Amino acid sequence: MAPPSALTAHLTSTAVANSIAENNYTERQSVIESTAPIDAPKLAELDPFKLKVTITKTPRQFHADASKIQWGKTDVSTDHWITAKWSETEGWTAPELKPYGPISLWPTASCLHYATECFEGMKAYRGVDGSLRIFRPTKNTARMLVSSTRIALPSFSPSALEELIKILLATDGPKWLPKSGSFLYIRPTLIGTGGALGVHKPTEAMLFIVLAQFPVLYEKPMKLLASREDSIRAWPGGFGFAKVGANYGPSLMAQKEAQARGYDQILWLFDKSCQVTEAGASNFFVIWKNKDTGRIELVTAPLDDKIILDGVTRRSVLELARDRLTCPTGDIQGLDIVERKYTMMDLVDAAKEDRLLETFAAGTAFFISSVTRIHFRGEDISPKQTNGKYTSLLRGWLKDIMYGEESHEWAVQVSETGFKVDNSAAEKEIDQMAEKLRQMKANPAFAAALQKVQAEI
Amino acid sequence: MAPPSALTAHLTSTAVANSIAENNYTERQSVIESTAPIDAPKLAELDPFKLKVTITKTPRQFHADASKIQWGKTDVSTDHWITAKWSETEGWTAPELKPYGPISLWPTASCLHYATECFEGMKAYRGVDGSLRIFRPTKNTARMLVSSTRIALPSFSPSALEELIKILLATDGPKWLPKSGSFLYIRPTLIGTGGALGVHKPTEAMLFIVLAQFPVLYEKPMKLLASREDSIRAWPGGFGFAKVGANYGPSLMAQKEAQARGYDQILWLFDKSCQVTEAGASNFFVIWKNKDTGRIELVTAPLDDKIILDGVTRRSVLELARDRLTCPTGDIQGLDIVERKYTMMDLVDAAKEDRLLETFAAGTAFFISSVTRIHFRGEDISPKQTNGKYTSLLRGWLKDIMYGEESHEWAVQVSETGFKVDNSAAEKEIDQMAEKLRQMKANPAFAAALQKVQAEI
Repeated sequence: MAPPSALTAHLTSTAVANSIAENNYTERQSVIESTAPIDAPKLAELDPFKLKVTITKTPRQFHADASKIQWGKTDVSTDHWITAKWSETEGWTAPELKPYGPISLWPTASCLHYATECFEGMKAYRGVDGSLRIFRPTKNTARMLVSSTRIALPSFSPSALEELIKILLATDGPKWLPKSGSFLYIRPTLIGTGGALGVHKPTEAMLFIVLAQFPVLYEKPMKLLASREDSIRAWPGGFGFAKVGANYGPSLMAQKEAQARGYDQILWLFDKSCQVTEAGASNFFVIWKNKDTGRIELVTAPLDDKIILDGVTRRSVLELARDRLTCPTGDIQGLDIVERKYTMMDLVDAAKEDRLLETFAAGTAFFISSVTRIHFRGEDISPKQTNGKYTSLLRGWLKDIMYGEESHEWAVQVSETGFKVDNSAAEKEIDQMAEKLRQMKANPAFAAALQKVQAEI
Repeated sequence: MAPPSALTAHLTSTAVANSIAENNYTERQSVIESTAPIDAPKLAELDPFKLKVTITKTPRQFHADASKIQWGKTDVSTDHWITAKWSETEGWTAPELKPYGPISLWPTASCLHYATECFEGMKAYRGVDGSLRIFRPTKNTARMLVSSTRIALPSFSPSALEELIKILLATDGPKWLPKSGSFLYIRPTLIGTGGALGVHKPTEAMLFIVLAQFPVLYEKPMKLLASREDSIRAWPGGFGFAKVGANYGPSLMAQKEAQARGYDQILWLFDKSCQVTEAGASNFFVIWKNKDTGRIELVTAPLDDKIILDGVTRRSVLELARDRLTCPTGDIQGLDIVERKYTMMDLVDAAKEDRLLETFAAGTAFFISSVTRIHFRGEDISPKQTNGKYTSLLRGWLKDIMYGEESHEWAVQVSETGFKVDNSAAEKEIDQMAEKLRQMKANPAFAAALQKVQAEI
């Protein structure tokens, strides 16, 4: 059978996708070797060059005013998504770029019972020069592989994932991210799909990438409620370092309590010593005057216990601060940059002794948010500055990199060729068939008949 | 419009379902008040009397020989399942009993990202008298509410859930559990479905119950590999006590390692002191001679730290042992029944001093499995008896209760009215429509057209 009209566009788009892939393809990173545990399964072929493309016939609504977007209430996904399936026996199938739509899963799918799922959070930024950039994507894709391995999901090439993200952005970027200084949220996800109730490593999985418009959230200062002793986010020997679903659901009740009491997020403490770890799902930073040295320090919790996330923003803040804030410049005093354990009592002491200068949360979703108040055991403490100069400097530098004000290797440009496909003939055919289906659907036998036919695939 | 042919059967079945519900309905348990935390949301109405029934037109294959069933390879679900949707604004919708089939979820559904999911594991037993029984169902449904609350999912009436389980069993029991002395696995599940990427309490959820044939697993003795110090299943202040997905996925890599090394499951230790907690996803029991008292003890880890599951089999073993094994009878020496912390070193000492008599795992899935070997830091220890008399007694008593050899309040009988519906007219109508759809499906425009029409629902 000759390829029908609807397929012609398809083939053309695939060719375009390949050319985007070629434009963007970066060298395979040594990151794969360095981050994957030794016993990780052999990398299966997730191959962006095999991408199948189907462009939507029913475009979704773009929300021009992002301030009106509400998570959970506004439908925020863009026109397309990318999916790829994996099975233990066959590895990765060809990825597909297609109209955004529901996932069909067996009720016994591993991810619905055993939390075999992990994800990444990234953003694409529309620069002041009109270019689309992503921020240190290799860090996210490498971490996704770490998370995937931790939760018994399959391996993949991080650079192939990066490539797929770029192709999706090239497709939906022009329509969904038109305005300089704005961003789109990127959510790569990997779930165990094999339909089996036994508690074991999933034999099937599905990778997908969705893009979403994001409510305007960041730069709003935050109030934090320190976690209670009977509520622990993560522990040594657990999985607090990985971006797996199991770190999030169990934190929601505490978060809800915090919000009911007028706070934005939980400040997660660990151990009887009340070590400060994370703020909500962001990393947490303190700028204070060290009691002993009298010097000003930027402090955040260390990664060695593997109980906190190795955040890309965290890492970037530390690197920028080490690079630009250690030596005094103008009226800016040089900072000591320290990754070490510190406790809530240290924070309380610093506040009482007027040494607590600035506190902020750092992560992709909320970016750099000043923390203006922390509640701990009946007391509220606040830093001296509610939006301090160091916090502002770091936020400004990062923003400049993300939006292309400053040229920096962390910001990776995405070339947007886009898919301009003439679908008018195919569209007409689809509309006619849709009309026929609409009529059949009025008959109550339709659902059962459709189910029967779909089961025959 | 008068109800068309396909709906008549529907209505009749609903009436039958109501009569089953009435037959089986048990008094609302005080369990709701006793287990739900004080701040649990007000119970929404999950109402089995509203059940909508659609009987399958395409029955699934029953596997007469359960020994051939392999998890993940054989399709084991029965003909029907029950679903009910919940939303923050409207509470529970009418539950539906319908042909088993896939779930459709938005890619941004909470359960796929944040592990907002919990489940229960139960079994239905076909007794020696031909009756169908479930074992202490109120314990499972109450625990499901505890799990649901812990993972920020909605509240429901445990007795309504029990009722729905019974209705599903009444429907599929006769065909799927024909043989005395065999069982069906029951999996009630609750997932967060709201399509939103923000990390927050799900605004929508879905409850479902599936039944599955089960591979013949239990009574096979187990070999356990003690967990490494850098691998911890649960932590005080965490969620080890709840049957939430987040307890399972993160354990799979360790389990895989155990299996690669020739062991069946991990024996989960906690803390530097190597407290013994759980065996795989089962509770763990030891029978040994107490070093100080010289008396024989049945020991298992306590519930107070909330790091182990309050297993129904665990609880039943303890209750039966307290009731029947504390006083000497015939050649059986009386046992002390103890819930307390004990360590791997205690086990090693007992084995060396010839005091380690029996060890077994207890849970719904694997029932009571003798543990014949435990590997810990380069050493293997074994109990004196590989299938000891106490283990056998407990297993035998429980089995007798489950299969109706012994009449006991723990075994709850399910009356199987079943749905005998004449569907011949409706079936014909569906077959004709299915044939029409099959022809349309050959056209490549079909998929897009169908998607369009389905989006209009």
